[in-house]
Amino acid sequence: MKPEFSEDFRHDFQTLLEWRRDVRRFRTDPVPPETLDRLLHLADLAPSVGNSQPWRIVLVESAGNRDKVIETFEAENEAAAQSYADEKAKLYRQLKLAGLKEAPVHLAIFSDENPEQGHGLGRSTMHETLAYSTVSMIHTFWLAARTEGIGMGWVSILDPEKVCRILQVDDTWRLVAYLCVGFPEEEHIEPELERTGWQSRSPLETRLFRR
Amino acid sequence: MKPEFSEDFRHDFQTLLEWRRDVRRFRTDPVPPETLDRLLHLADLAPSVGNSQPWRIVLVESAGNRDKVIETFEAENEAAAQSYADEKAKLYRQLKLAGLKEAPVHLAIFSDENPEQGHGLGRSTMHETLAYSTVSMIHTFWLAARTEGIGMGWVSILDPEKVCRILQVDDTWRLVAYLCVGFPEEEHIEPELERTGWQSRSPLETRLFRR
Repeated sequence: MKPEFSEDFRHDFQTLLEWRRDVRRFRTDPVPPETLDRLLHLADLAPSVGNSQPWRIVLVESAGNRDKVIETFEAENEAAAQSYADEKAKLYRQLKLAGLKEAPVHLAIFSDENPEQGHGLGRSTMHETLAYSTVSMIHTFWLAARTEGIGMGWVSILDPEKVCRILQVDDTWRLVAYLCVGFPEEEHIEPELERTGWQSRSPLETRLFRR
Repeated sequence: MKPEFSEDFRHDFQTLLEWRRDVRRFRTDPVPPETLDRLLHLADLAPSVGNSQPWRIVLVESAGNRDKVIETFEAENEAAAQSYADEKAKLYRQLKLAGLKEAPVHLAIFSDENPEQGHGLGRSTMHETLAYSTVSMIHTFWLAARTEGIGMGWVSILDPEKVCRILQVDDTWRLVAYLCVGFPEEEHIEPELERTGWQSRSPLETRLFRR
């Protein structure tokens, strides 16, 4: 009954983590609907506080809605570019930070801030665990997609309130992420921000403490 | 170069997601330090906004500190129990919601709210993406641990400010989770909250929308 995972599986699981990547360069060919459906069902196995499953997944299909989301990305991306100076500003403008125009699938992921499910368990002192549960769902989707050769990019350079208004969602829903999904144009083991010289990763040891 | 994942791998990956579980019943035998180190390095491969790697991991080893954390859990758990009425209150008191006394490893996970790394990229309109990055790290650790037969329980019934004070961490660190880690006493494919009748999962279709 209890599953055992093989050394081979663990090796490939490490490869999955190493190659996951935030993808911003997509091919435009579609993701088969049955694949997307399978990935969403896998993501739905994610942990949630009090078993509340607070994630609300919106498939953004209308071209009009997508255009409005792209508009808020472009406005906020321009504002961000202006907040940097000199070389960093120049570099920022060269980065490709989203694949919104090319990605065949757009998913807007919200977290219900007041779900009935779960009966409030586990979130009275740390209400943010609802949004954290939703992040676990997104991360599960990300890994599951990668196992099928599908890439995901997490767009956070957006006005979250505007996205809520564009998509006309319930008042209790909070935007957690806007996801681009599709087949990647290229595959890399190093993050794009590392390859472009924006920010490299640093050793784990700098983040580990004992008390 | 580009990794391909086999049908077998995908099958076992689904099994991993299905059997992950939040564990609250631990055996007291230790987790080998080299295993913990390997899992933490895998978790460190998690995605982060702007490549900021904002997670700060505290191994809570002192018995005094653990006792103080257990005290805040017990106080908040009692307060939560009192917030329910009748049958739900009775059921709440029967739930085992943490394995703090038995788990051989305690990890307090913080998110730095103002890390230099990443140069602010991607978080100017959605600052919470820092904490969300830290959640991805926790979720990666959770899955990696499970591949080695190790269980994790996420404790959120705590006063986060108190935990910051007990562990004397930097002012810019925010508690995201307190984790119990160890070998599980039992293995189940159904969540404990489902088995005890607190809250069952519901169909994905109720959480899916199109716009």
